[in-house]
Amino acid sequence: MKTAYLNGTIVTIDDHNTVIHHGVLVVEDGKIIHVGSVEDFDQQSAEHTVDLKGKWVLPGLVNTHSHILMTILRGIGDDMQLKPWLETRIWPMEQQYTTETAKWSTALGLVEMLKSGTTTFSDMFNPIGIDADEVARVIGEAGIRSIFSQTLFSFGTEEEQKENVRKAREFAKTWRNEFDGRMTTMAAPHSPYTCSPDMLQEAAKLAADYQIPVHIHLSETAQEVQKNVDDYGKRPVAHLESLGIFNQPTIIAHGVHLTQEERETLAKYNVAVAHNPISNLKLGSGIADVTAMLTNGIMVGIATDSVASNNNFDMFQELRIAALLQKGAKEDSTKMPAETVLRLATKDGAQAIRLPEVGSLEVGKQADFITIDPTNQPHLQPKEHVVSHLVYAASGSDVCDVYVKGKALVQNGECTTLDEERILFEADRVYRNLKK
Amino acid sequence: MKTAYLNGTIVTIDDHNTVIHHGVLVVEDGKIIHVGSVEDFDQQSAEHTVDLKGKWVLPGLVNTHSHILMTILRGIGDDMQLKPWLETRIWPMEQQYTTETAKWSTALGLVEMLKSGTTTFSDMFNPIGIDADEVARVIGEAGIRSIFSQTLFSFGTEEEQKENVRKAREFAKTWRNEFDGRMTTMAAPHSPYTCSPDMLQEAAKLAADYQIPVHIHLSETAQEVQKNVDDYGKRPVAHLESLGIFNQPTIIAHGVHLTQEERETLAKYNVAVAHNPISNLKLGSGIADVTAMLTNGIMVGIATDSVASNNNFDMFQELRIAALLQKGAKEDSTKMPAETVLRLATKDGAQAIRLPEVGSLEVGKQADFITIDPTNQPHLQPKEHVVSHLVYAASGSDVCDVYVKGKALVQNGECTTLDEERILFEADRVYRNLKK
Ligand SMILES: [Zn+2]
Ligand SMILES: [Zn+2]
Repeated sequence: MKTAYLNGTIVTIDDHNTVIHHGVLVVEDGKIIHVGSVEDFDQQSAEHTVDLKGKWVLPGLVNTHSHILMTILRGIGDDMQLKPWLETRIWPMEQQYTTETAKWSTALGLVEMLKSGTTTFSDMFNPIGIDADEVARVIGEAGIRSIFSQTLFSFGTEEEQKENVRKAREFAKTWRNEFDGRMTTMAAPHSPYTCSPDMLQEAAKLAADYQIPVHIHLSETAQEVQKNVDDYGKRPVAHLESLGIFNQPTIIAHGVHLTQEERETLAKYNVAVAHNPISNLKLGSGIADVTAMLTNGIMVGIATDSVASNNNFDMFQELRIAALLQKGAKEDSTKMPAETVLRLATKDGAQAIRLPEVGSLEVGKQADFITIDPTNQPHLQPKEHVVSHLVYAASGSDVCDVYVKGKALVQNGECTTLDEERILFEADRVYRNLKK
Repeated sequence: MKTAYLNGTIVTIDDHNTVIHHGVLVVEDGKIIHVGSVEDFDQQSAEHTVDLKGKWVLPGLVNTHSHILMTILRGIGDDMQLKPWLETRIWPMEQQYTTETAKWSTALGLVEMLKSGTTTFSDMFNPIGIDADEVARVIGEAGIRSIFSQTLFSFGTEEEQKENVRKAREFAKTWRNEFDGRMTTMAAPHSPYTCSPDMLQEAAKLAADYQIPVHIHLSETAQEVQKNVDDYGKRPVAHLESLGIFNQPTIIAHGVHLTQEERETLAKYNVAVAHNPISNLKLGSGIADVTAMLTNGIMVGIATDSVASNNNFDMFQELRIAALLQKGAKEDSTKMPAETVLRLATKDGAQAIRLPEVGSLEVGKQADFITIDPTNQPHLQPKEHVVSHLVYAASGSDVCDVYVKGKALVQNGECTTLDEERILFEADRVYRNLKK
């Protein structure tokens, strides 16, 4: 069925950053088949029409790095050093997870992501104690687009590590093209400080075998870089390069502490970066030089990391802080303009996680889009500065409708595929069951 | 009439940061006369009760530096250097202002501030071309608490400057204790780079004559500091000190570029700082060292500046970024913990602008408070981490009710004293009337 969404202001994120006032977007079989002006459009050609009444329409936001299973851990520890935070707050909770804990925590994250305009997320999950297939089904059935990747660590006995790899391979294979293509997978070695060189190469092999990318944490803190030099005589980027990891399509989370030489290496291998500005601030990691990354031609996406270090999944706040930080840290207000950061949070982020079929509103792309109604929102006036307001004034709570593959997952602020009330109740229950 | 607000989680911001679960707040004649636990409270003693049903209650947020007349200029220029931004975007618009423009632009700002939980703001306005008394009435009649101060500049002919001072004196005198004490004034010389030493001393005299504080922009950019050294042979703080300005109670906006010696001078004179983290980032001014200010015993409040450099009045986002920036810039996650920044945005901010009667929920304080209902908000789960979520997860759109002096100005997200629909319509109209 052809559905025409009429009378919206369409922020296309095409190559010219075209914004179409009084625009129309036509969707058929989950894909965009036409984008243009209402004046030039024959409404008879659509079987179904939706009047957007002046709403703003933009590509769904792409969250390039998250840990959705940790959603119920929001607020269990703030303002702490990384080590005690992990050792006394995060890990003791994660070790108590059951499949049920993971499912409801994930569902809570899905409600939050969808309602705040995220249509795609790329996630790393810790598989300990859970049946990950069941969690994958929760995500897939919600209708969102995801890359869901089991983390690899060099923890435990040799036997446990082998079992971890075996499970990760099985998971990556099973879910690499499911839910009508909405779910794919990556090979996800956690980081060079938690994975041995052997484990990193196992991950690269997994990626090669199933033709999937590698997703890894890299160069998040100054201490991590120093530890890598101490342990392997190399900084993290050179370490991964020498192990051949970058011969696979790779996306690194963070990249806060990079030298110019390292940026050139990343660019050479087409390694993308998931930029997590709020998590990097909150954990005291620092401010990534995204301006220099872009100058070097590195693909960059925006990401939230988990809500334990954020503490929400609001990509509007994330992209806004990404823009503000570059200006402030460099004392130059022209850095990271609004159009650039909006592109990072959509089209460029999609490319970074190797999903070029989403991220912009162009013919042939997947119909993943969201709407915002500025009508009664004081902070979105005057209404004419659409891109400026999306970047500098909006937040996730302004999102009205959310579509993935042409299907409405949020309508007028309410989830259509998820039982919000039940999910909030159950998430609270499984959180209470954890020993504090 | 005694009204008891029952069954809330009360974030008091008292000296022990007490949070009362199943709390009660009793208000009489616009003041708080009791704060405690519901269990210990005799409900018969109240003439009227309101069941908060588990809502979170906190002091209304205090915005210590704004320019509310500029609200319709949101988004007219972003990502620009300060000088062309002012000269080609902001000033050409401000010069076209009429009283009508100023009134509707202000009303739009009031709707936004109130709905996002701000109960007090301290503002500097440019009086050119407008009848400021009419704007003051718009603010006063909205029920919000304000400090509304006419800016002094050394622009124009000697005659024009004299007229500017005369008007500022008259304005400061007329409105220094109006609307049942909800509106007061300050002497507001714009800055040392726009005011001659004579004008700065005129402002200090105005402050002394009417026993009001001084509100001034100071040390916002590195260029400004250098210009002050070039023009007067002194950095801005020493310049104001030598002119005797700090003999009046003073609050400076920004303080991004301060030396340790300057911080000690500010502390010595009890000069407070309005910290505008987002505006400082967006205009490329830099990151103020608030941690060092607090270590030196300087009073600090949080502020938004105008929405032309923000671009909204959401104090929740502002206080969150204030906390995150200290951690990130210092690469230390323990800096600026949640309780500290929440105090800056409420009680400490109120002290900074010399309104110690607001900013906390304690007996004898003014009944300026706001509520948030976490029930159906995925990003506020698990519900038990109240202070963490207020700082790291909430935003202004979560605000449910807003009370000033015990009067509900927002109820369930709707303004009670302002006609929102009319205001948005008229603000749009007066904005369109400006030549672009
Ligand atoms: Zn991560
Ligand atoms: Zn200002």
